[in-house]
This record gives sequence, C-alpha cells and structure tokens, in this order.
Amino acid sequence: METAGKVIKCKAAIAWGPNMPFAIEEIEVAPPKAHEVRVKILASGVCHSDEHILKGSLASTTFPVILGHEATGVVESIGEGVTCVKPGDKVIPLFVPQCGKCVSCQNPNSNLCLLNDVGTLNGLMADGTSRFTCKGEQIYHFVSTSTFTEYTVLNETSVVKIDDNAPADKVCLIGCAFSTGYGSAVNVAKVHPGSTCVVFGLGGVGLSVVIGCKVAGASRIFGVDVNSDKFTKAKEVGVTDCINPRDYDKPVHEVLAGMTNGGVDYSFECIGNVDIMVSALKATNPAFGTCVIIGIAPSNTNLVFDPMLMLTGRTLKGALFGNLKSKDCVPILVSDYQANKFNLDPLVTHSLPFDKINEAFELMRCGKSIRSVLNF
Amino acid sequence: METAGKVIKCKAAIAWGPNMPFAIEEIEVAPPKAHEVRVKILASGVCHSDEHILKGSLASTTFPVILGHEATGVVESIGEGVTCVKPGDKVIPLFVPQCGKCVSCQNPNSNLCLLNDVGTLNGLMADGTSRFTCKGEQIYHFVSTSTFTEYTVLNETSVVKIDDNAPADKVCLIGCAFSTGYGSAVNVAKVHPGSTCVVFGLGGVGLSVVIGCKVAGASRIFGVDVNSDKFTKAKEVGVTDCINPRDYDKPVHEVLAGMTNGGVDYSFECIGNVDIMVSALKATNPAFGTCVIIGIAPSNTNLVFDPMLMLTGRTLKGALFGNLKSKDCVPILVSDYQANKFNLDPLVTHSLPFDKINEAFELMRCGKSIRSVLNF
Repeated sequence: METAGKVIKCKAAIAWGPNMPFAIEEIEVAPPKAHEVRVKILASGVCHSDEHILKGSLASTTFPVILGHEATGVVESIGEGVTCVKPGDKVIPLFVPQCGKCVSCQNPNSNLCLLNDVGTLNGLMADGTSRFTCKGEQIYHFVSTSTFTEYTVLNETSVVKIDDNAPADKVCLIGCAFSTGYGSAVNVAKVHPGSTCVVFGLGGVGLSVVIGCKVAGASRIFGVDVNSDKFTKAKEVGVTDCINPRDYDKPVHEVLAGMTNGGVDYSFECIGNVDIMVSALKATNPAFGTCVIIGIAPSNTNLVFDPMLMLTGRTLKGALFGNLKSKDCVPILVSDYQANKFNLDPLVTHSLPFDKINEAFELMRCGKSIRSVLNF
Repeated sequence: METAGKVIKCKAAIAWGPNMPFAIEEIEVAPPKAHEVRVKILASGVCHSDEHILKGSLASTTFPVILGHEATGVVESIGEGVTCVKPGDKVIPLFVPQCGKCVSCQNPNSNLCLLNDVGTLNGLMADGTSRFTCKGEQIYHFVSTSTFTEYTVLNETSVVKIDDNAPADKVCLIGCAFSTGYGSAVNVAKVHPGSTCVVFGLGGVGLSVVIGCKVAGASRIFGVDVNSDKFTKAKEVGVTDCINPRDYDKPVHEVLAGMTNGGVDYSFECIGNVDIMVSALKATNPAFGTCVIIGIAPSNTNLVFDPMLMLTGRTLKGALFGNLKSKDCVPILVSDYQANKFNLDPLVTHSLPFDKINEAFELMRCGKSIRSVLNF
C-alpha cells in the first residue's frame, strides 16, 4: 500500500485526562517496527473497562491515552518479520496476547500471556515507545490495542486474522465482551447440561455469559439486575428467570437458594462490585457451587467473606477474556458465529459513527445500551 | 453378643465445658435404635478440630459433649433395618456421612451429605435424642461420631466396613486427617504430574497433603511451618523444600514466587488462619494457580483480599474430608494403604492409652506430635 512505511495522519479519540470527554484529534501513527502490525480500524465496541480507565478508578493508567480494545480492522502494513498476517487481512486486536512461548501460554489452563499489559498498564510497545503522537506529544497505548482511532499499531502477538466475510460491526464483540462472558461459562465454569446458573449484571458481558450457559445446556438461567429495563433483552438471549433484588426484602442469594434447592450450580459476577461478588458466591450451592468473578472491581476494594463459605465445597474462580487463549480461540468463535452456533447480534443495541464516541459512552453510563459499536 | 439390646456402661472422656480438661467418666450408652449401629472403639486419633471445640472457638458447640471423630472400631450390635454392617465388622466412623440419596450425594462433585452435623453441630441422633448419659445427664454427640469413648452409637450413614486385617491404630487416620489431606491433593486440587505444590502447616493434615502430592507426581513440594522441628518428618514423607517464614524478611508468598517462576501450581492451607489462607492464595501462580483451603478458621474471622488476585486466573477451593464421598472412598483408601500405595505410619508419632487423652492433647498443643493415637 502507498501508506506502508510512512507516518499516517488520521483521527483518534484522545483521553487527555481522567473524567474528561474524549477529544477527536488529528494524530500521527508511526509505521510498524519489526514484529508489529499497523491496522485500519473498521469497528470498535465501547466497554465498561474503557470507562473505568476514563474515571481513573484503575490507579495505574497513564494519560493522555487512546482507549478502546474491542474491535475489528484490516491490516494496512506489517513490520519486519511478521508472518501471522499480511496487508488486507481482516483481523481482531487481542488485549490478552498469545506469544505461545511463555509459561502461561504453554500451560493448558491459562491464557494470561506474560506479554500482556493488562496488569501493569504500561501503555507502550515492546521497545518502550509509543506509535502515537498528537500535537507533538506522545500518546499512550492501552492494553496493547488502542482501537478508538482510525489506525493503530499492534504487536504481532496481539492480533489475529479472522474470516474476511465476518461482519466487522458484530464480530468486534468477540474481541472482548462476548469472549469474556461466553468463555467464562463454557471454559471457566464449564457449565454442564441441566445445570442452574445465575448471572449478576445483564450488560454485554453478562448477556454473553447467558449465551454461553444456554449453549452449554443449562436448564435454568437466572438473570439479576437492578435495572428491570434489561430484562426483555435478557430473556431474548436465554435468561429463564429475571430477578430485580429491589423487589425482595431479603438478600438475593437467599431468594435464589429458595428457588434452587439450596443454591445454583454456577454463578457469575459481571459488574465489578465486591459486595455483589460475595452475593454471587453465596448464591451457589454450598456443597458443589462454582462462582466466577468477571467484573473488574475498583482499585483498593477487597473481597471480605467467611472462609467457611469455601470449606463446605465451593469453588471461586476468576478469569480475563474467559480464560480463552486468544489467538487460538478468536478465529474459532468468529467461525462459530458465522455458523450460527450462537447469535451475538442482540448484544449490539446501538451503532454510531466514530465521532459520536462521547454519545456512545453516555448511553452506556445511563444503562440504555447493551453494547454500542462505533463505525469508522 | 450378650450386650446387644442392653445399655452398656463404659468409660468415656467427657468435655464438660470449654477450656476444661477431659474427664474420664463412667457413662451409659443406649442400644442402637433403628438404622443405628453401636461400635466398640479400638483406636482414636486426636485432631485439632477437637481442640477447636474444646477451646470454644466454634461458636455453636453444645456441652457436655463426647468429642473425637477419627477412629477405628468393631460393630457391637446393630439396630433394626441396618444392612451395611453386622456385629463383628471392623469399621471406621464417618463424620461426613453418605446417605446416597440427597442432592449432594447424587452430585458427582460433592461429598457434603445433607445429613451431616458438621455445619450445625446439633449433637443429637436423627431422632433428636442422645445415646449417652453420665450421672443422669444427657451428653451430646459430636459430628455424628463421638469416638473418645469405649462405645459409641452411629447412624448407619455414618459408618463403613473396612478390611478386618487393617491395623486399627493406623487406619483410624483415614477417618479424618489422612483423607482430608490426601483427598485435597488428589481429588480437590487434582495435582498433576510434574507440578509444584506448597503446603502451609506440617501437621497431620498437612503431611497427608504432602503424601497426596507425592502420589500424584508433583515434582517439587514446598513445606511451610514456623516450627522447624517439623521439617525432618516433613522431608521423610515427601517435602522437597522446607521454609520457615521467620527465616526471611519478605512475605513467604514472595519467597515462593521467586523460587517457582511466579508462583506454585497448587497451594494448601492446613492451619485455619485467614491471613495464611491469603498468603496461600498469593503463593499460587496468578495465571493458573489453585489454592485449597483445608484449615478451619475460628468463627467470626474473614478472608480479606483484592479480587484482582482471582481475575488473573486463580482458583480458590475449599473442601471437607478432601471432598471424598466417605462410604465409597474410605474402604478403598484402607485397601490402598494395605497395598502400600502410600504409607501413613510416619504420621502417627505417639500412641497412648485412652485414659492419657489430656496428655495427647498437650502434645498436640505444644507441637510435639504429628498425630497421637489413643488405644482402647
């Protein structure tokens, strides 16, 4: 391509600091270095994790930064030594990379590649520099992806080719919300046919858990949310019983215990609230229940609970990206979607042009959207 | 037998109240009612759980009570309808029963039979009465077993026949400590060949975990204890690296992370201290570690930790009796012991006559014994 090897000037949504609206700015995107890939973004979903960063509730974030991590794109050019993709390939950026070589990648039970930038939020490429500048200032990357921009640069471990015919404005959700939720049900909890499940929080991740529970054959799927407006969509994707905790005068785990002979087989916390995580744990059967924590709690908050909750036989698990090995699993999930093994279309409630990004965040904050997708 | 159907007068160790020494008293043991079994105790181990009750640190205990729950015995007589054992059978009492009919018994992943009295410590037989009296006063049962007595009465769901040739003064440990530890390694954590493990607390349960890890093929087994006197025995049963946290100026989980490329595959807390439970969790690899809580913490203490510890991919589990279905597994473990699949003899460091029970508890309190067995 004629842009290969050159700096690209394009539009990006910059988060200049905590609690500020995004500013659409012209930025310069440097060419990919060795083992890097420059990608033209086609569509990007808007996620609560971006919002956490914007609110400054994850302490280690460095501003100014280009957020966004749930996207589809097309490879514009590749750096030296890249063999996994070529210009023109349709791809999904991977916020949990898969190098294939580290102790986590080589462990069949883990997906947390040691090259990830989720824990440290370092915000730089492998060589310690950024590929983004705006008005002469270096702009930080975000979890190895940064998709709220027309062009981004990814390490080759953080990008995977998908089928060229996959609809960009839908399968972008496989880059985060869908895989996180679906993987938590089928891969982390390993929901079994005929089981009972409860999902706390009926947003994009929560509904993806519901889809996973349904595909896995759960016989009863409870959905819990304080916003009853979410119940219609929840039932559409598979929830059998909707519960608004505000409709009861006892704790929701007691309500669920009464409806399930002592507690559910599997519970999922998709909110990021430590008190709700404990409720989710208590909602499981004491003798054999499994609780999966998916939501990201604010920094400096703790889980606090009686260890006897565990001793009777419960299991508590956590995972990022549904503990799916990203390079291996994302293309398969895209194919499964294309083969109608599941339908994630109902999760996309709003489509907006990229420059309406602040509007998309407002829809998320007020609970009106499940997932908004920005189109470029 | 000539005693069948009659009240038996015998010796028992009564705990009249919290923090009092045991008193060896003459008691009356009523004949077994329907679906009950009266057992002559041959040998009984002394366990920290008995000590917890004696110290009053588990709030719901009712005194006076006959403690003891890790024993071997011989069936003296059976009540109406009992078919699982007959007089003369060698048996092990089961503090976690197995009725075979409840939701837990029918779930392949649970052993916590709903007939258990571990949670409520009700202290009575199924009909709401006791079979023990002393000086005209009703004496309570303890977790459906009560083995610090020459004769006890058990529900048929709380007793299982074992091989007649099994040595009573050794296989009694299969009634609690051994199965709890061994089962936690092979059945709860499912330790895999070549893995790294750490065991916090090198008492009877901890060393049984070590034996389980070794049988499962762990390549490296760390043993952590503040009492270095325990290290010789620990190495004898399989610990490869002994760590006394007092020898280091950083937290033990950091010491272990440094020795294991980021954290162990499996950790086990065998003490019952909530702070050590959190250390055990932190000692596991963030991306794929599993921590099993085995120790029973005092009432009204909480686990407190950052949920991010889970989100990276850890698993936290708890279990009673190694999550082993007691009736199914105890006879198999006895046979495995007889077939030298493992050796639990080193765990029995002291053998005393029954009437030296207070001495046995003193040995446990001052850390001089691994397991003391009382012989009747």
